[in-house]
Amino acid sequence: MLGVCYYPEHWPENMWARDAQRMRDLGLSYVRIGEFAWGRVEKSEGAFTWEWMDRAIDTLGTAGLKVVLGTPTATPPKWLCEKYPDILPVDIETGLRRGFGSRRHYDFSSKTYLAQAERISAAMAQRYGSHPYVAGWQTDNELCCHDTTLSASPAARDAFRLWCAKRYGTIDALNDAWGNVFWSMEYDSFDQIDLPFFTVCETNPAHRLAFRRFASDQVVRFHDVMIAAIRAHAGKEQWVTHNIIPPATTGVDNAALTQGLDFVSYDNYPLGFSDQLMAKAPAADWQPFMRTGHPDLAALNFDTVRGLSKGAWWVMEQQPGPVNWAPHNPRPAPGMIRHWSLQAFAHGAACVAYFRWRQVPFAQEQMHAGLLRPDDHPSPAWPEVEQVAREMAQLGDLSEAAAKAPVALLVDTASAFVDDIERQGAGYRYPAVVFQYYCALRALGVDVDILSAGQASLAGYRLIVAPTLAMPDDAVMQRLRASDGLLFFGPRSGAKTQEFSISEGLPPGPLREFVPAKIIAVETLRPDCTELLNYQGECFTSGRWRETIEVDEAEIIASYEDGSPAAIRSGRTTYVATLTDDAFLKSLLVRLCAEADIAVTPLPSTLRLRRRGGMTFAFNLAAEPVHVPAPDGANFILGGQLVEPFGVSVWR
Amino acid sequence: MLGVCYYPEHWPENMWARDAQRMRDLGLSYVRIGEFAWGRVEKSEGAFTWEWMDRAIDTLGTAGLKVVLGTPTATPPKWLCEKYPDILPVDIETGLRRGFGSRRHYDFSSKTYLAQAERISAAMAQRYGSHPYVAGWQTDNELCCHDTTLSASPAARDAFRLWCAKRYGTIDALNDAWGNVFWSMEYDSFDQIDLPFFTVCETNPAHRLAFRRFASDQVVRFHDVMIAAIRAHAGKEQWVTHNIIPPATTGVDNAALTQGLDFVSYDNYPLGFSDQLMAKAPAADWQPFMRTGHPDLAALNFDTVRGLSKGAWWVMEQQPGPVNWAPHNPRPAPGMIRHWSLQAFAHGAACVAYFRWRQVPFAQEQMHAGLLRPDDHPSPAWPEVEQVAREMAQLGDLSEAAAKAPVALLVDTASAFVDDIERQGAGYRYPAVVFQYYCALRALGVDVDILSAGQASLAGYRLIVAPTLAMPDDAVMQRLRASDGLLFFGPRSGAKTQEFSISEGLPPGPLREFVPAKIIAVETLRPDCTELLNYQGECFTSGRWRETIEVDEAEIIASYEDGSPAAIRSGRTTYVATLTDDAFLKSLLVRLCAEADIAVTPLPSTLRLRRRGGMTFAFNLAAEPVHVPAPDGANFILGGQLVEPFGVSVWR
Amino acid sequence: MLGVCYYPEHWPENMWARDAQRMRDLGLSYVRIGEFAWGRVEKSEGAFTWEWMDRAIDTLGTAGLKVVLGTPTATPPKWLCEKYPDILPVDIETGLRRGFGSRRHYDFSSKTYLAQAERISAAMAQRYGSHPYVAGWQTDNELCCHDTTLSASPAARDAFRLWCAKRYGTIDALNDAWGNVFWSMEYDSFDQIDLPFFTVCETNPAHRLAFRRFASDQVVRFHDVMIAAIRAHAGKEQWVTHNIIPPATTGVDNAALTQGLDFVSYDNYPLGFSDQLMAKAPAADWQPFMRTGHPDLAALNFDTVRGLSKGAWWVMEQQPGPVNWAPHNPRPAPGMIRHWSLQAFAHGAACVAYFRWRQVPFAQEQMHAGLLRPDDHPSPAWPEVEQVAREMAQLGDLSEAAAKAPVALLVDTASAFVDDIERQGAGYRYPAVVFQYYCALRALGVDVDILSAGQASLAGYRLIVAPTLAMPDDAVMQRLRASDGLLFFGPRSGAKTQEFSISEGLPPGPLREFVPAKIIAVETLRPDCTELLNYQGECFTSGRWRETIEVDEAEIIASYEDGSPAAIRSGRTTYVATLTDDAFLKSLLVRLCAEADIAVTPLPSTLRLRRRGGMTFAFNLAAEPVHVPAPDGANFILGGQLVEPFGVSVWR
Ligand SMILES: [Zn+2]
Ligand SMILES: [Zn+2]
Ligand SMILES: [Zn+2]
Repeated sequence: MLGVCYYPEHWPENMWARDAQRMRDLGLSYVRIGEFAWGRVEKSEGAFTWEWMDRAIDTLGTAGLKVVLGTPTATPPKWLCEKYPDILPVDIETGLRRGFGSRRHYDFSSKTYLAQAERISAAMAQRYGSHPYVAGWQTDNELCCHDTTLSASPAARDAFRLWCAKRYGTIDALNDAWGNVFWSMEYDSFDQIDLPFFTVCETNPAHRLAFRRFASDQVVRFHDVMIAAIRAHAGKEQWVTHNIIPPATTGVDNAALTQGLDFVSYDNYPLGFSDQLMAKAPAADWQPFMRTGHPDLAALNFDTVRGLSKGAWWVMEQQPGPVNWAPHNPRPAPGMIRHWSLQAFAHGAACVAYFRWRQVPFAQEQMHAGLLRPDDHPSPAWPEVEQVAREMAQLGDLSEAAAKAPVALLVDTASAFVDDIERQGAGYRYPAVVFQYYCALRALGVDVDILSAGQASLAGYRLIVAPTLAMPDDAVMQRLRASDGLLFFGPRSGAKTQEFSISEGLPPGPLREFVPAKIIAVETLRPDCTELLNYQGECFTSGRWRETIEVDEAEIIASYEDGSPAAIRSGRTTYVATLTDDAFLKSLLVRLCAEADIAVTPLPSTLRLRRRGGMTFAFNLAAEPVHVPAPDGANFILGGQLVEPFGVSVWR
Repeated sequence: MLGVCYYPEHWPENMWARDAQRMRDLGLSYVRIGEFAWGRVEKSEGAFTWEWMDRAIDTLGTAGLKVVLGTPTATPPKWLCEKYPDILPVDIETGLRRGFGSRRHYDFSSKTYLAQAERISAAMAQRYGSHPYVAGWQTDNELCCHDTTLSASPAARDAFRLWCAKRYGTIDALNDAWGNVFWSMEYDSFDQIDLPFFTVCETNPAHRLAFRRFASDQVVRFHDVMIAAIRAHAGKEQWVTHNIIPPATTGVDNAALTQGLDFVSYDNYPLGFSDQLMAKAPAADWQPFMRTGHPDLAALNFDTVRGLSKGAWWVMEQQPGPVNWAPHNPRPAPGMIRHWSLQAFAHGAACVAYFRWRQVPFAQEQMHAGLLRPDDHPSPAWPEVEQVAREMAQLGDLSEAAAKAPVALLVDTASAFVDDIERQGAGYRYPAVVFQYYCALRALGVDVDILSAGQASLAGYRLIVAPTLAMPDDAVMQRLRASDGLLFFGPRSGAKTQEFSISEGLPPGPLREFVPAKIIAVETLRPDCTELLNYQGECFTSGRWRETIEVDEAEIIASYEDGSPAAIRSGRTTYVATLTDDAFLKSLLVRLCAEADIAVTPLPSTLRLRRRGGMTFAFNLAAEPVHVPAPDGANFILGGQLVEPFGVSVWR
Repeated sequence: MLGVCYYPEHWPENMWARDAQRMRDLGLSYVRIGEFAWGRVEKSEGAFTWEWMDRAIDTLGTAGLKVVLGTPTATPPKWLCEKYPDILPVDIETGLRRGFGSRRHYDFSSKTYLAQAERISAAMAQRYGSHPYVAGWQTDNELCCHDTTLSASPAARDAFRLWCAKRYGTIDALNDAWGNVFWSMEYDSFDQIDLPFFTVCETNPAHRLAFRRFASDQVVRFHDVMIAAIRAHAGKEQWVTHNIIPPATTGVDNAALTQGLDFVSYDNYPLGFSDQLMAKAPAADWQPFMRTGHPDLAALNFDTVRGLSKGAWWVMEQQPGPVNWAPHNPRPAPGMIRHWSLQAFAHGAACVAYFRWRQVPFAQEQMHAGLLRPDDHPSPAWPEVEQVAREMAQLGDLSEAAAKAPVALLVDTASAFVDDIERQGAGYRYPAVVFQYYCALRALGVDVDILSAGQASLAGYRLIVAPTLAMPDDAVMQRLRASDGLLFFGPRSGAKTQEFSISEGLPPGPLREFVPAKIIAVETLRPDCTELLNYQGECFTSGRWRETIEVDEAEIIASYEDGSPAAIRSGRTTYVATLTDDAFLKSLLVRLCAEADIAVTPLPSTLRLRRRGGMTFAFNLAAEPVHVPAPDGANFILGGQLVEPFGVSVWR
């Protein structure tokens, strides 16, 4: 299915009907509205003006569209901020209150805002919970965007103290857990605990970990209240989703955050995110992809969101042209709107909705393209969406969740917290490590499921890769024990206890069950200062993060320049104790895939494959046509053996 | 004429007479004093101590010097800051009050300070308004320097609310104008409007534009009150000027700011400004100019200030040696003090005053050179000033404004605001775009008038170049319509309405009257990722900012790598829809100049030409002698066919 | 002697005895404890719990160890911060209070904290002042670390006003001294003086100098009170020391700071400091030293600390493996723990103590290696310490101070203040200039004493090198006059008066007594834009800081590209008026050493020599063995002619 994001309040009412008709004509099924409209549905506390929204929904529904209704809690209106100034968050760098005038200006720990947000969500659900045109709900909008997970507010401080009291029971237990004897940091009561900001040097990592967990919990709790407020009034057939930003950027346990949803949605902006990701890449590396996005970045997020979602997931916002918020904002190469749409479907999406219907000529996002130009003419994306709409029929029913991939890539918020909190080497960034592993697998043409460690069953995966599993808890250990595929752990795995101490008996701590070794030392190096890594008689490189390991009984499969072990194998488990070059990773993965009977297809950087429902999709990111590795006699559903520039072929 | 800046209060009174005599002996006519002396002329509110200034003026005047009196409002004394703490501005990054201890520590929106500044200016004018030795007045000093245009103070907030109420009349009108329906940003009253700082993400660009206009208006209003305070008491023959900093750095409508002056002055620091401008240039590009300054930077500011000035303009402060405030502070190459002085005259100056007479051994500027060393000996600049003084006679009367140049380059504050507020691509910086166009013209040996779009008549200009005219208003449109030269617009022209929306019917909005096309999309690229531009069968490059244009009826004169139009010609108007390399700009300008019958003289980077009053000045920035392109039989006033290193030749 | 840092409060009491026994077995003599234990010895004001510390000291002492007791003032506990919030410092960038949660969260100007710190120090000294196992005391811990010298607190402001009143007597005297007539900065009373922060542009350098001096005095006064509190109760045989951080980073007059101590200690972290120092060096320059540290950095600090110390100095903390706080934290190359230990002894240390005994698995420093791993097994450092312990006997008695070196390198806090306050050129950094001179001498195999200018006698030094002596006072002048060696001054020497004006009669001011010249101008250049320097018919480079000099009667020994003098010689004094390349410095130093009859041994970058007590130590920083320049018939005490990789040879 296809959809679009629409803001009836931005346009004269007499345009609505024609807009709705054109949406249908274009082949769209869903239209999302409402998520920033608080100021227009409630003019002062309790003074609701739903009538225009009633008419908008009727107009859209009458035209045959299904409405997705966004609750407007991302933008509390000015009257609310004035009446309840304690809802505003506090900047963790400057200590200044972050005021009204943009969006997301609320504190997840504000009780006042929680009540207000619940009130407006409930009111909207009450009004539209049984509306026949309303198919489902989107909570808030892009939770945590603009670095809003953390706040240095009094509300956050007070809530954090309560959270600590609940988690630790007694202040002595907290002091013990955090190791506060160090530097005389012991507290006499929970009321003495401050937020870990504005200190002379770094605070206790256990303190920061607790605060990060607390902040994550606050977001989840806020979101759960919103979901409950909707469900209390919404019809049974109305589903609830949330349009998540790239999961690695929320600072929140995304599995917990999305647990209460019917399915998860994702906002897909490949060019802007890639421009940021590759800001320091040489032009020669970046220019080939500046109008397509990095070949694996959208896919990484698609696969992550699929792993979070109960059913087939959605793209709730798809970039339809240049955007306005990255340092540089190229136009997509011709064909890329279709390409990204089909890519989303290949990775398991049920619906792709474009953001936005018509480019708005005013306010913050006026340089963000839409399907229509500000002058109401079709933008370059329009014919590509028309084409996708036509092609949907050939792809069959996409409403069911995609089948399991052969490889599971395990990610977890805890590992990201560990990296953020303990920057032992500037060359180790957890998201970059995950991405390197993911890219290596994708360059081998392998489909990958990205799973939140501990949440998902690993049964059936033939290869389970954890780039880092820094703080595995009981749930993770149970999942690993219950798995039966090959296991592959990267460095820093098992590094920490649940309270941010070095693992009992040294890392990999509980993972010694699988990795019979001890990490007896860690060194971190400058990224441009690499050392040799010997593997299979060939030379690769090791760098950035290097562990010295004491091996119990295991095969040493790669070694450092001094001959000491760098990677080991024991039973079904491989442990690589260092970050490496891409070549080593691919070489090792090829062998593991062979062992696990997983077919690999080494691909050039401009070609990617993905399978769904018996179909194989091939995506060409090059400006030249390319031959796809389809088997003889392949039945082409879209395209053929030779894919046009930026094109897609699909075969059975 | 020549002059100098002098601080009698810095030196023992018994040195004054000898100083004055030496000034005269050096050939100086004017001496500026007083602009930081508030603390010495008023010891507490109303307790004036003019006597020492009386004596200083008498001593200088008696020696034959004409005094320029600076009002001391740039440095309110400590007693005033203590008595009226509300005069202090607030930093827009940190929210901290910017306190006493340096200079410019006042808020343009403080009513208290406005009254105090008016009071001291009036008092000074009253005392010296009929003094025979006082030739004229300088208001304040370097208004807006040190990023003082914007303040986050309560005074600014209150004044901004009033300004909005006045501009928009009703809050509904403001909400409509700004598009506040977006993100629920609508206000119920003007009292709800905050300054556009300290928010979660970017504020409404219309909000920021209004604030920038307001801030500009506050500076202008403050300055106008100062001018009025002086004129109320000053003699008819006493003129009023202000020493402006590089106009592109004020964040103020410079045409409005300088409108009430008799003429405009400029503070010329070629080395410091060039070191900042070229901070990231490779050493090979920078080193040849590190002791001369960028070949076109001082000229750009000269031509800009000439465009702002009613009559011949002044250099009020000319760097006479190394300064103290740039990241690196080289000494000028030998001859450059003379070179810069003659360059100012060539570009229309009536007077060049050096900053400062004697290097002061204490306080903030002790590493700033003077005409005299701290030990009272002549500095290396001295003999060069002696030479200029001798040469003045040969140049004739320079008190009249310079004649019109054949080319007008249009600049405007609005385009700078658009760039600052909507950084759609990090490679587009309005001042850099203007500078690129200006340098291309200057490298062709063409004289250029830089005009504030909308303020100046364009009649008589054979070529009118607007690197960007982002937000043309009615005044600009009238000037363009009334012009008869060739028109050349660069990209982003006509992009926005007066309230920062996308232009009606798409850009170039009102400029479609001249440019029969629509900008249907914009992309921005990394500066190091350029694309091909085809022009006249040759390959150039396009990058940073690229517009996709839909052409009505116009000739396509250059095209992108995909064949789509990149530059068009219609009637007398050329539109270039992208930023390009310098080579393309020069190539196009050569053709336009030929068409407009403007002679071009392509020059090496170390040679520049400028005409005034029948004379042609040639400036050699190289360390080697160079032959100047003088016609056979030229009558050399200064120098000859072969100009010495860093030298100047002048012929008729 | 060898020692170790130990935190009994971090470990179960039943581990103490075994730990103590293993320390003895390893060959350690000293154990430092207590310096962060305030929270465990005083649970609320006056409620002391010394008993555990009594037991810890007894356990250690009984095992044969001598205890060094640290007073715990670096970490005031939470109850104290709550009771006396005025003890907290204020950040000079943000204006925010720096709160509890890490360490060093106290304001040197807080009278409350001074009293509290004195109280706890006295209480501890009272309890253990006559304890037979306590050999001596360490005051506080790493004073000034984490940028704590400066604070923007009300306490600092009030104390600064009093300090100014005391220094200047009358406000008129202060106004005169600072040159406050400039920019109307004159005060009417001391109560008007603010701290030099949060202003519009730069404050008066004299104001900032006074504040830096004040801040230094505050630290010294605080420290002197702590020393007195200890000495009032400590036994005569108990000494007092302080573990200083790299002296160039304190912002304090280190000679004054350490004057009251019996000897000075230093905390030696060669890898972390080198990673920071060489952060921008190309990989090819850095990688060879990433596991050894820069060949001259630890030595620089050793020689500096030796110059500050009355007797043989200590390494109180020696890095025994990777640390946790640098951007990158490599492991030391094999042998480097021994190498650094022997290096410290060669440079005059009496004792090297390792930080820390056992790696702690919790809190801030859990990634900082110890002699034992967190699992109680020996870390890689252990056998190296065993080896050092064995080798100590061969080195003889090291408790006496090392003998004088032939060369004195003069450093002073004033020159560092001048550089920090007046950044005339971004390429001039005083610490880097000192380091360049030091490295040149060390690369010639010369032993160097680093002395605080003005504090130490220069008698007996054959060559006295001052890379910069920006503000020489009477004490310095007397020391110079009383010296009889060759004098060598670098640029910027004699630049300023004691109140931060340009020196009387131009620089080098009072140094004209030795340097018969005037610095008539200074230019600063971008580091990548160098000019030629002619010396002895060879071409070297001059850059970054270049002075134009007017020479009275002196030999010109080097000249700039334009032939003007760049270095002069007069009598026993050489003045170099510019920063240069290393090659010039070495070339000049070779000639001066020859003249002074100092033997030079040009060394590769991976070999260093140092003499002590008739022994010559050779340090190999290369991964290959190297032949040492020992004379024929040298009597090898450790190693031999061929030193192993990272090894050390010692001969008589
Ligand atoms: Zn967002
Ligand atoms: Zn300025
Ligand atoms: Zn430290």
